[in-house]
Amino acid sequence: MDTELFNVVSSKTLHAARFEIIEDELDIDGKAARYSFVKIKPGVCVIVETPDGFVLQKEYRYPIKSWTYEFTAGTIDEGDTPEETARRETEEETGYIVDELTALGRFYPSFGPTDEVIYLFHARCTEKKKTNKEYTEFITDEVVDKNRVEELIINGEFRHGAGLAAWLKYKLMAERKGKSV
Amino acid sequence: MDTELFNVVSSKTLHAARFEIIEDELDIDGKAARYSFVKIKPGVCVIVETPDGFVLQKEYRYPIKSWTYEFTAGTIDEGDTPEETARRETEEETGYIVDELTALGRFYPSFGPTDEVIYLFHARCTEKKKTNKEYTEFITDEVVDKNRVEELIINGEFRHGAGLAAWLKYKLMAERKGKSV
Repeated sequence: MDTELFNVVSSKTLHAARFEIIEDELDIDGKAARYSFVKIKPGVCVIVETPDGFVLQKEYRYPIKSWTYEFTAGTIDEGDTPEETARRETEEETGYIVDELTALGRFYPSFGPTDEVIYLFHARCTEKKKTNKEYTEFITDEVVDKNRVEELIINGEFRHGAGLAAWLKYKLMAERKGKSV
Repeated sequence: MDTELFNVVSSKTLHAARFEIIEDELDIDGKAARYSFVKIKPGVCVIVETPDGFVLQKEYRYPIKSWTYEFTAGTIDEGDTPEETARRETEEETGYIVDELTALGRFYPSFGPTDEVIYLFHARCTEKKKTNKEYTEFITDEVVDKNRVEELIINGEFRHGAGLAAWLKYKLMAERKGKSV
């Protein structure tokens, strides 16, 4: 069993600002070891595809002091499923109703220092309802074609971890079906 | 200027286990706001390609209590460049000397809660020197072809954020040159 590979001798939860940090003392084959990591809420990332193209958000992200292109993303509320969250975030952030949601699996953005897991989706949408999101001047939307998405990835303007993982899964799954994205 | 978009009123550094957490009070267009994030050391991720194929490591990652396939990766030591780190990690983790190193840009694994940045590379290698790394039973190597890499990505066994970003960049850059990876 994976969870029993390292025997947990003791576990502490530390609190700093909005974060919980786990500090465990371990027994690995009789040797004492210590491992700490940051608990991060699980999330979703959704490639929203409309008849006009793929919806990109450009957002100012404070930790990296940069503007970044991103796909729609958000954290999963307690008790919600990844699918429910993907539908809700798509509607809230883009205003589009999801017609067809395809799961693209999950990935770990950074499994050394954090336990964060992100569930990836592709959402096919046609009907735009409204935008619930209160956009600030720090978020803008763009709808672009596949070539533009890949150009932004190649030239480095799209550097969103979850978005890159979602696009790779989407592209490989499309190739398997014998069509390019 | 990006760095001046949010005016920093005060900044606190908190310490918990091995982590530094930044808690900033901001002034955004006259409105008070607060943002906290975890400082994570910058790192590299390298797709190591040898005459026999791509080097994958399978490693037990404690925060997610799972075995994961990964490409070679590591943190950048103070004063080192990403390129130096990529060469060193490749040699230490796989035993291969780097003949040709191609930068694939950088990405942010999770720019909401952390400031982590990872520099991505492809390393073409032929000569194997030795393996410096003291492998435990919790890390194993496999050398596989391109189809196997993509199979592991599609079936979800390869879920390494930096590895997925590196593979996508590598694949798109190869497509641009008119050849598939």
